[in-house]
Amino acid sequence: MRKVAITGVGQTKFSGAQEKTQVELFSEAAMDALNESNLKAKDIQALYLGNVLGDFSEGQMQIQSFAVDSIGATNIPTNRYEGACASATIAIREAFLWVASGFYDIVLAGGTETAAKMGTPLATRTFAMGGERGYEQPCGITFPGVFALLAHLYSKKYDIPLGKLREQIAMVSVQSYKYGALNPKAQFYGKYGDITVDKVLSSFMVSSPLTLHDCCPFSDGAAAVVLASEEKAKKLTNKPVYMVGVGQASSGTIASQQEYLPHFRARDVSAKQAYDMAGLKPEDMDICELHDCFSIASLISAESLGLFDYGKAAEAWEKGEADIGGKIPINISGGLKAKGHPIGATGAAQVYEIVEQLRGEAGERQVPDAKTGITDTLGGNAGTICNLILQRGW
Amino acid sequence: MRKVAITGVGQTKFSGAQEKTQVELFSEAAMDALNESNLKAKDIQALYLGNVLGDFSEGQMQIQSFAVDSIGATNIPTNRYEGACASATIAIREAFLWVASGFYDIVLAGGTETAAKMGTPLATRTFAMGGERGYEQPCGITFPGVFALLAHLYSKKYDIPLGKLREQIAMVSVQSYKYGALNPKAQFYGKYGDITVDKVLSSFMVSSPLTLHDCCPFSDGAAAVVLASEEKAKKLTNKPVYMVGVGQASSGTIASQQEYLPHFRARDVSAKQAYDMAGLKPEDMDICELHDCFSIASLISAESLGLFDYGKAAEAWEKGEADIGGKIPINISGGLKAKGHPIGATGAAQVYEIVEQLRGEAGERQVPDAKTGITDTLGGNAGTICNLILQRGW
Repeated sequence: MRKVAITGVGQTKFSGAQEKTQVELFSEAAMDALNESNLKAKDIQALYLGNVLGDFSEGQMQIQSFAVDSIGATNIPTNRYEGACASATIAIREAFLWVASGFYDIVLAGGTETAAKMGTPLATRTFAMGGERGYEQPCGITFPGVFALLAHLYSKKYDIPLGKLREQIAMVSVQSYKYGALNPKAQFYGKYGDITVDKVLSSFMVSSPLTLHDCCPFSDGAAAVVLASEEKAKKLTNKPVYMVGVGQASSGTIASQQEYLPHFRARDVSAKQAYDMAGLKPEDMDICELHDCFSIASLISAESLGLFDYGKAAEAWEKGEADIGGKIPINISGGLKAKGHPIGATGAAQVYEIVEQLRGEAGERQVPDAKTGITDTLGGNAGTICNLILQRGW
Repeated sequence: MRKVAITGVGQTKFSGAQEKTQVELFSEAAMDALNESNLKAKDIQALYLGNVLGDFSEGQMQIQSFAVDSIGATNIPTNRYEGACASATIAIREAFLWVASGFYDIVLAGGTETAAKMGTPLATRTFAMGGERGYEQPCGITFPGVFALLAHLYSKKYDIPLGKLREQIAMVSVQSYKYGALNPKAQFYGKYGDITVDKVLSSFMVSSPLTLHDCCPFSDGAAAVVLASEEKAKKLTNKPVYMVGVGQASSGTIASQQEYLPHFRARDVSAKQAYDMAGLKPEDMDICELHDCFSIASLISAESLGLFDYGKAAEAWEKGEADIGGKIPINISGGLKAKGHPIGATGAAQVYEIVEQLRGEAGERQVPDAKTGITDTLGGNAGTICNLILQRGW
């Protein structure tokens, strides 16, 4: 297997409802990623694209075929991946293999979504299909519902009174809002940077104990990544970021993994794959972008990734250990909470942030001397997890 | 790259509306493929699954995660591919690479769909989203509409009077009905084997010149394929079928390729990739399963695959050259027309047929001494084409 590098990344500004189509958004991100790589569209040998709700938001199926046409790379193979919120990370992992195996030298991967444009009622109704149809959906168990239940379970398992846990997870949101307000690509750029724990706690209750400010928004946006073989990458950029580890696992229904909850079995498997492939450990990570669909999800993820001890992540956030200057800065992009969550694009935007950070281009949000980072993306109610480990190549 | 073999295949009976879910159908096909391979579900290292309309037919997104749970292979990576009708072939091509590259030794691929259960109005309305949203859909250009227009273009380009062409393509359907009636896995098994050219011509007009009997049905069904490295395959079966060539390309809108019509640019690219990888030529093929969504589509495909000269495929079918005993037997399964078309499963069912034929297990429909076969699957209005070349390994 060859070494694989990221030579360029692109991301649209994430936002609420806007005018562009998913293909237009993706094309914008793709062109930025190609420009950074000093490539033209015709140099791309394949496209791997995450997209979840395009059928419902725009009546567009098989979007990948029109996306390559739009960027001018017609006639290359192109796949659409739907793995709920993990779609783009899955697409990038596939792209990785095609290059690592020597089959292609230069490929494009990413994701796009117009989830905000659909409007919250339709987005909520259709996105809920990521839960299992036979048992989970008929129970009325929505995504906020699942994570609210996990918060109760977390509180009980680690003997943290629910009131205290609520305050601690509110700090997760506060940190995300702080950095989202500083990220020009974030949906909440320049907004809500002054949100306090009190404001989080007093915002309206979505599913107890999670309030509005514990939950990420639906967003429109796209992100793209160019992957190249080491040999090609060295000719294209003097700042290649290597993808040194990848992992992925699917666990099925949440009921099938009761003994693991509030953590997810698939994350243990996926993270181990990624660390093992990279030959690295959690303590080698300098930065992390993880799947904070809800504030409680950040704790669960950070613990399974081995970044904090089980039951100790809340305390870690409280102490600033997940902030710049702490043990491991997490979601310095603003995360799904404040950067936004255009579902099928989220995983690629996590890669975008890590690459910017490793290159030292994150401006006010720069994590000093970040050399190695990990992304973590979750699809559905613990259904699918995909992790990527990236490393500075200079 | 390592040699990749198919060690087992499975297919449910294709049918109209039935009671099982997509996951249940896929599990049935998967278990057959695993049993043929002398494997258990826990031996599978990854799952690649085609599915197109599951969100609409069953309200189930991220179906792959529940499919692995159902077959008992929980915690492996699993991807859903949506490339309109080409979804399962795309999934199989991806599976091929993961084995060829040495990353996995044994993987499962396939597709599943419950398109008939949805009812024709909803299936038609949602499936139409495979056409391009910005220009094609607002023009009211449906799939039957596109292929009807291509029939007119074909008639004009090759100077075959439309009336004569209608009779010739009716013979394509007649042949498919004949073999579908003999295929126990076909939707029209035991039915319509006596359909004549006159019956095809006098059935109701769908989109001139295509009548009902020129069009494939919506179907429920699933198919599955186990792929293994050569080394593993030799231990699992004494009848390995090698996947010796794969190709894939996407062309975007039909309007973007006017100069190529009635043929599709993507098929030229994809077929060449597959032949080149295999080091084989069209004349080396002993059998072919191609994408006859409409009878005219068979001519277009067979010509682009190099099986008949341009403008001569109609005559070839008329003379029995696409029948058993002819130059190259095509769609001896009954094809999409009579075996049925469960959209996301179709490509895997094409592989199922070729494997059965290469093994000499096709009963009344057996093509004598078939050693090498090609599949051809089309997604959307010429959007995506994927080809696979299979060869007997004993």
